[in-house]
Amino acid sequence: MCSELPIGVFDSGVGGLTVAKEIMSQLPKESVLYFGDTARVPYGNKSEETVIAYSRQIARFLCSCNVKAIVIACNTASAFALETLAGELPVPVIGVVKPGAKTAARITKSKRIGVIATNGTIRSGLYERYLKSISPDIRVFGQACPLFVPLAEEGLCNDPVTREMATRYLAPLLHEQIDTLVLGCTHYPLLTDVIGSVAGPSVTLVNPAYETAKELRALLTERDLLRTSDTPSIHRFFVSDGEEQFRRFANSILPCELEEADVNRKVFS
Amino acid sequence: MCSELPIGVFDSGVGGLTVAKEIMSQLPKESVLYFGDTARVPYGNKSEETVIAYSRQIARFLCSCNVKAIVIACNTASAFALETLAGELPVPVIGVVKPGAKTAARITKSKRIGVIATNGTIRSGLYERYLKSISPDIRVFGQACPLFVPLAEEGLCNDPVTREMATRYLAPLLHEQIDTLVLGCTHYPLLTDVIGSVAGPSVTLVNPAYETAKELRALLTERDLLRTSDTPSIHRFFVSDGEEQFRRFANSILPCELEEADVNRKVFS
Repeated sequence: MCSELPIGVFDSGVGGLTVAKEIMSQLPKESVLYFGDTARVPYGNKSEETVIAYSRQIARFLCSCNVKAIVIACNTASAFALETLAGELPVPVIGVVKPGAKTAARITKSKRIGVIATNGTIRSGLYERYLKSISPDIRVFGQACPLFVPLAEEGLCNDPVTREMATRYLAPLLHEQIDTLVLGCTHYPLLTDVIGSVAGPSVTLVNPAYETAKELRALLTERDLLRTSDTPSIHRFFVSDGEEQFRRFANSILPCELEEADVNRKVFS
Repeated sequence: MCSELPIGVFDSGVGGLTVAKEIMSQLPKESVLYFGDTARVPYGNKSEETVIAYSRQIARFLCSCNVKAIVIACNTASAFALETLAGELPVPVIGVVKPGAKTAARITKSKRIGVIATNGTIRSGLYERYLKSISPDIRVFGQACPLFVPLAEEGLCNDPVTREMATRYLAPLLHEQIDTLVLGCTHYPLLTDVIGSVAGPSVTLVNPAYETAKELRALLTERDLLRTSDTPSIHRFFVSDGEEQFRRFANSILPCELEEADVNRKVFS
């Protein structure tokens, strides 16, 4: 395997760009090949079987583009498909759930951790299983927040409506006196201000995007796959629908400016 | 063509059930074969190209099941794909946009009509074109309401958050002094109470589901395809994901009770 090859990153849509951004920031020499499944977004309410099927199609496409590793930058796909993909792909695969869980387990003092995520991720129970495998005395309180993705996609990141929904969603977790809250969906970091202010100063937010980029660095180092070349990195983006809308959103999130030609459509038939 | 055959009805998910319900109520002798594309829902923010491709796959599947007519029970798919499908399928096809537009044109007195719908339907401009083709002096005011579908799917039909969003979405239309408002997305009839109360008594709501069932009756009568048999009608349901969730939702909307065996999964590869 050649360290010059790009890292494949995929998500159901634009949310995984928060992970791509962390990778670009923490590993600036690496090239990223991103795939957003905008023709079938969102994954959060879809079944395990369907999310695995979609993830497998995308991962195979990324492998056909010669990536050296794959990051599943979507919590729902990480929860449902990581094990399957890791078992059948020729490159190392990491998800966003394990890195976020590890950090939450490390920083909690009260051993009471809240997880907010999509219906699919909460239903999978994966965060709870990881957290309990690290420390069996941790108590985990999960809460699905299905309106957070559409609110973020509508740009209502600092809106009273988002604050009202955050107040409702977080109430049961705050009642349980959590001291740590995992943002278990890649869209949720876009709502950090509202979520943080509703949760209050006694709750520490964990952003798995940041932790995932750290874990990726460790993985690449361990396998001697860190890119060392001094030529500039090259990022490429594929979507299954709506190149223009994706490019606008990406340009509001990423540290680099995407030109039209940088975003291509890949259709699964 | 045999009048005994079922009517094919499709939507991006559960919203089209409001149309299926009207068909079952106005044409109780007819059998309905429903397809909900729950693996790829929603269509409202997707491109014309993608919505046409998905609609074509579903319509071909319905034709392979021997339906005598197809109802596109989704405004976005009607706006983007009706013309294409009508031109290439061996059975008559109707959408929900034309019937709703016709009624709105008939009942408006001030000739100022509001249309609320998904981004895709509003962007297509189809309601405006139909309305102006009926009466060129009608003024049409369109408003995309992208949060209404997730709010309805979350069951927040009578919630203060839904009322707040309705107030924002309808403000520009009410400012234009519309007297008629088309519910241009099959989910929106689920929010009738809130939308009606925000719009106020001077605005008449038009539900295209009701008008579409009337238009279907006229079409079947004209082609001598109305079912006359006295044996009971048989309804069948196909989804591309999440049979159980679909069944629960359908049972809260439809006049008949669906058993598990009535809902099958059809996967497009």
